[in-house]
Amino acid sequence: MSSERLRVALFGSGRIGHVHAHNIAGHPDLDLAVIADPFLDGASRLAASTGTTAVASTEEALDTPGLDAVVIGSATSTHVELIEAAVQRGLAVVCEKPIDLDLATVRSCRERIAGSRTPIMLGFNRRFDPAFAAVRRRVEAGEIGTLEQLTIISRDPQPAPVGYLASSGGIFRDMTIHDLDMARFFVPDIVEVSAQGSTLFSDDIRDLGDYDTAVVTLRGARGELVTITNSRHCAFGYDQRLEAFGSAGMLSAANLAADTVRFYSASGTEQAGPYLPFFLERYQAAYRAELDAFAAAVRTGTAPSPGFDDGMAALVLAEAATESAAAGKAVNVEGSW
Amino acid sequence: MSSERLRVALFGSGRIGHVHAHNIAGHPDLDLAVIADPFLDGASRLAASTGTTAVASTEEALDTPGLDAVVIGSATSTHVELIEAAVQRGLAVVCEKPIDLDLATVRSCRERIAGSRTPIMLGFNRRFDPAFAAVRRRVEAGEIGTLEQLTIISRDPQPAPVGYLASSGGIFRDMTIHDLDMARFFVPDIVEVSAQGSTLFSDDIRDLGDYDTAVVTLRGARGELVTITNSRHCAFGYDQRLEAFGSAGMLSAANLAADTVRFYSASGTEQAGPYLPFFLERYQAAYRAELDAFAAAVRTGTAPSPGFDDGMAALVLAEAATESAAAGKAVNVEGSW
Amino acid sequence: MSSERLRVALFGSGRIGHVHAHNIAGHPDLDLAVIADPFLDGASRLAASTGTTAVASTEEALDTPGLDAVVIGSATSTHVELIEAAVQRGLAVVCEKPIDLDLATVRSCRERIAGSRTPIMLGFNRRFDPAFAAVRRRVEAGEIGTLEQLTIISRDPQPAPVGYLASSGGIFRDMTIHDLDMARFFVPDIVEVSAQGSTLFSDDIRDLGDYDTAVVTLRGARGELVTITNSRHCAFGYDQRLEAFGSAGMLSAANLAADTVRFYSASGTEQAGPYLPFFLERYQAAYRAELDAFAAAVRTGTAPSPGFDDGMAALVLAEAATESAAAGKAVNVEGSW
Amino acid sequence: MSSERLRVALFGSGRIGHVHAHNIAGHPDLDLAVIADPFLDGASRLAASTGTTAVASTEEALDTPGLDAVVIGSATSTHVELIEAAVQRGLAVVCEKPIDLDLATVRSCRERIAGSRTPIMLGFNRRFDPAFAAVRRRVEAGEIGTLEQLTIISRDPQPAPVGYLASSGGIFRDMTIHDLDMARFFVPDIVEVSAQGSTLFSDDIRDLGDYDTAVVTLRGARGELVTITNSRHCAFGYDQRLEAFGSAGMLSAANLAADTVRFYSASGTEQAGPYLPFFLERYQAAYRAELDAFAAAVRTGTAPSPGFDDGMAALVLAEAATESAAAGKAVNVEGSW
Repeated sequence: MSSERLRVALFGSGRIGHVHAHNIAGHPDLDLAVIADPFLDGASRLAASTGTTAVASTEEALDTPGLDAVVIGSATSTHVELIEAAVQRGLAVVCEKPIDLDLATVRSCRERIAGSRTPIMLGFNRRFDPAFAAVRRRVEAGEIGTLEQLTIISRDPQPAPVGYLASSGGIFRDMTIHDLDMARFFVPDIVEVSAQGSTLFSDDIRDLGDYDTAVVTLRGARGELVTITNSRHCAFGYDQRLEAFGSAGMLSAANLAADTVRFYSASGTEQAGPYLPFFLERYQAAYRAELDAFAAAVRTGTAPSPGFDDGMAALVLAEAATESAAAGKAVNVEGSW
Repeated sequence: MSSERLRVALFGSGRIGHVHAHNIAGHPDLDLAVIADPFLDGASRLAASTGTTAVASTEEALDTPGLDAVVIGSATSTHVELIEAAVQRGLAVVCEKPIDLDLATVRSCRERIAGSRTPIMLGFNRRFDPAFAAVRRRVEAGEIGTLEQLTIISRDPQPAPVGYLASSGGIFRDMTIHDLDMARFFVPDIVEVSAQGSTLFSDDIRDLGDYDTAVVTLRGARGELVTITNSRHCAFGYDQRLEAFGSAGMLSAANLAADTVRFYSASGTEQAGPYLPFFLERYQAAYRAELDAFAAAVRTGTAPSPGFDDGMAALVLAEAATESAAAGKAVNVEGSW
Repeated sequence: MSSERLRVALFGSGRIGHVHAHNIAGHPDLDLAVIADPFLDGASRLAASTGTTAVASTEEALDTPGLDAVVIGSATSTHVELIEAAVQRGLAVVCEKPIDLDLATVRSCRERIAGSRTPIMLGFNRRFDPAFAAVRRRVEAGEIGTLEQLTIISRDPQPAPVGYLASSGGIFRDMTIHDLDMARFFVPDIVEVSAQGSTLFSDDIRDLGDYDTAVVTLRGARGELVTITNSRHCAFGYDQRLEAFGSAGMLSAANLAADTVRFYSASGTEQAGPYLPFFLERYQAAYRAELDAFAAAVRTGTAPSPGFDDGMAALVLAEAATESAAAGKAVNVEGSW
Repeated sequence: MSSERLRVALFGSGRIGHVHAHNIAGHPDLDLAVIADPFLDGASRLAASTGTTAVASTEEALDTPGLDAVVIGSATSTHVELIEAAVQRGLAVVCEKPIDLDLATVRSCRERIAGSRTPIMLGFNRRFDPAFAAVRRRVEAGEIGTLEQLTIISRDPQPAPVGYLASSGGIFRDMTIHDLDMARFFVPDIVEVSAQGSTLFSDDIRDLGDYDTAVVTLRGARGELVTITNSRHCAFGYDQRLEAFGSAGMLSAANLAADTVRFYSASGTEQAGPYLPFFLERYQAAYRAELDAFAAAVRTGTAPSPGFDDGMAALVLAEAATESAAAGKAVNVEGSW
């Protein structure tokens, strides 16, 4: 059976690399051929626990015999180079977001890989969350009539380390980008972006000239209004919710706790546990479903979704949000793709 | 308009008397003519705050000119006498449960008032709770197919004073009787009663030879099974819930908090407030709807429901539960009405 | 006791007039002295059902002997004149929102009544909703740490008649104004307004050059971000929710259904009923509590809250939102009060 | 690493065999050495999909070289024989419930294996459900004070095929036995059993002289009261809930839907999806956690829990329930273990 599996090279053995490594290793249609990371120690430990081998060299990984695909979970700065190298070799690609922090770089990459039919999937994992995916499916099925408003609430449990934040491109490119893609999952054609940022609790983030709190409003081509509410901290866990409001009703997706237990006492009732702490737990099923979709797309020869252009579109929106927040005006993004 | 209102004499100015006094005084179809209580001081204060007069004498109250109805909220030991006096005078009756703690006394009363067409309503207020009434209405409408199981959970916030408990007739006659009537609201024809009692937390109740915790299972004529779970205390408020399970679905009614506010913090999420503390708050709407139903029944000349026989039936079941708990066996109640 | 009650003249016998009339008539501290409306027929019917008299003339109503206060529920165009007339006579005022659709008119009124110590309360009823008030109280008590974000979702069940909408001043002045006041209930000092409007379902509203769908983002002086999501229709009832997010947690207030019943069947589980249809039902308790607060303020000689300046501030924000939506840029409102 | 894993033989390749086969095959500490089933076809297919081999012969399976443990998921009639054979060989055992339908047979088996230190775990999977386990852990931690009442609601989606039911031993031995063990998970020392059965919807079950609907009340040694509500059908999915009520509060565990999506429309609000259909889905995590606990117990040389005696105790309670339902009286089970 092994000969029928897609042989995959994984780039990056950090937090997201771990998720992918275990999911690939346990996937019936995928074979984890190699893990590549210049920090070989971590890669080797991860390789040992997933029954594969580790290498430090990108070239060596790409030259692994019989390779079918690459999963790129390495530093953002390596994404474009790896995508292009994979495309040259005809290897299917899953690339974590963002493609790059610089839109011009992304556009150049896009030109260089234009014409290639290599399948490229962008790692917007949230599209594969069972609840968000179900809301999308039911909206498409017409359960709420015409979609009019989308409300996305997305708060991280706490800010990333300041070192990471310094090179993150700012809240819109680093954090909101997931929500911008979620907006496009429901309203692909966005025409206008308005954003407000604020720094309410983190001196580190203020020192970086970045925001720890933000609101983005998007207008779709049909006039749909999408609201994104972000915070870089959240006392009660990872806050990831969504409401799709339409002419005939509404569909909502809620947060997840570890279990369904509720507590009742003199000080309150129906208390659920804290929400799952962060993306590794909250989107566990989503990361698996993402690989399922990738494997299925490669097998059937259909274009994976979300694709490269979705990655670029989210970045366009993130840039527009950055600009809007600074300038205090709405930014038109028609024709920016 | 006053001439068209039903003129009502209220017996009793205790806790339940207060509820009825204010509800009658504020009711568009009722006129609170007099409040009678041998403890004249309390009655006078209540009368002052509801714009009526107080008397100590039962006879005097019954002889109030133009009287149409009596609401009996006095001590249980006075119920039978007051019912009979009212019936003799042709006054419509609302009587708090129980009719009497002694079934033989109730049966005698029933014989004495037999043939009278005076409307008598038993104060099983919970039948008028908006949620329980809605469940009943929807069960009747067939939403859950055939009713198969009824689950009633009913817990008081804390035990009544030991002085009250000593003359209460025991948990089944005093507390469970409401749940037994609720069972009959859904399954009027009960054929068998099984009960278990336990004393887990109250030495006072143990000393009285009574139970502070109980479970009753009832079998309906079609085989329906009803479960009643009781406790004389509840840390998180007045616990009053119900589930009607049928061949095609289930309908449930939940507890009430003061508002819909939920709290989310590092120690838990979705925490609602404590439930409403006790019957005065929980069944506020029910007490008003009960008077609505009474006024409407008297006006239209239809028999009020629940009526005298429902009061007797609940007592029959309470006696059977008392016997079953003591004897450790199911008690058949067919033909006991 | 009647001599101690505040004697109130009610202006307007329309929908909101009915609410106030019944609440005043049933209020222990208020006495409904007269109802004034040029459409005397409706006023007379309402007066008959609340035990008072009706007049067509404003003057006549204001000259009612022993009058203490006026409740203004008449057409918006009459508000300023009535406020000023009441202030001249030293009558306490409750005035429905908005004071006027024209900010200059409001400012002039304010100048004319400056120096008066007559209590004036603005009818922002939602501040008195038990759930919203509880969230506010608990935020003030520090339960969520420092308030950082406020999310208000507010959707009417369906648009008002086009005749009404034509003179409503547009969605921001007519509908959002309640949410703008709710924002100020939590974040009194707003410095910037950004708004987006869209017309998605109503041709009438489009023809009026108005929006049926809107989003407003407000920035508080400390950087707090408030989001308001509006729609002029909502398939599942009156959608009125709020979340206050802070550094240590979150408090939310939810919609209300008629009862707590939940339905479980093969096609879904835990289904609650539709939400209460509109403001008369949803804010029933709020309207009563508003009068309580008014009566208490007048009695104790404290300034009622919300007051005239709150009414003006909400209008300033509504104008800024109107301007922002048209211009596609944030509008600074510092120093606009 | 393989040499450190426990080598496991699986008996039975039916529905529950499939669950165990995949869980063992994917478990880091277990190695699925062989699958044994006289119906070799099914076993072979299951073996192929889990990367192991299938045999028809029990002996052959037990003689697999290097075997450490057996998982018994074959027909109930084979359980005792397989347990004894495994014990003789010193193989650790996981055995599905019930040990046998006949209590005398179980007692004999117990005598024959007495003295052996072979670890035996009974497959009461629900003890490992994350929510039920969390409630138990929090009860033990004292969150609700002293446990007083336990309410278990347990309904299958639809009856098993009549052929299965005919040899199932009746609802108490076949279905309620899981709930009886859950009762003992919280209240190990049960002293009295009362049961009522009814046949409300299944002619097949009536023809078998069995019940399709049942209620069981258990009394613990400290007077705790446990209520179990069963039905052989449930329109809205697999209904598996529990409430632990104590002197200081309550903990509840709810049903599971496929996702957190809620639907709001003109016909109702907050509608969740149907509950997970049956045990394979509902207890997916529980089956995995059960194997974790087994592997950990074997590794650390501690006795697995629940053990053989828990299996026997549940059967004692099931027999007592059967007797109680038939006789209409409580059955004392003190000293029956």
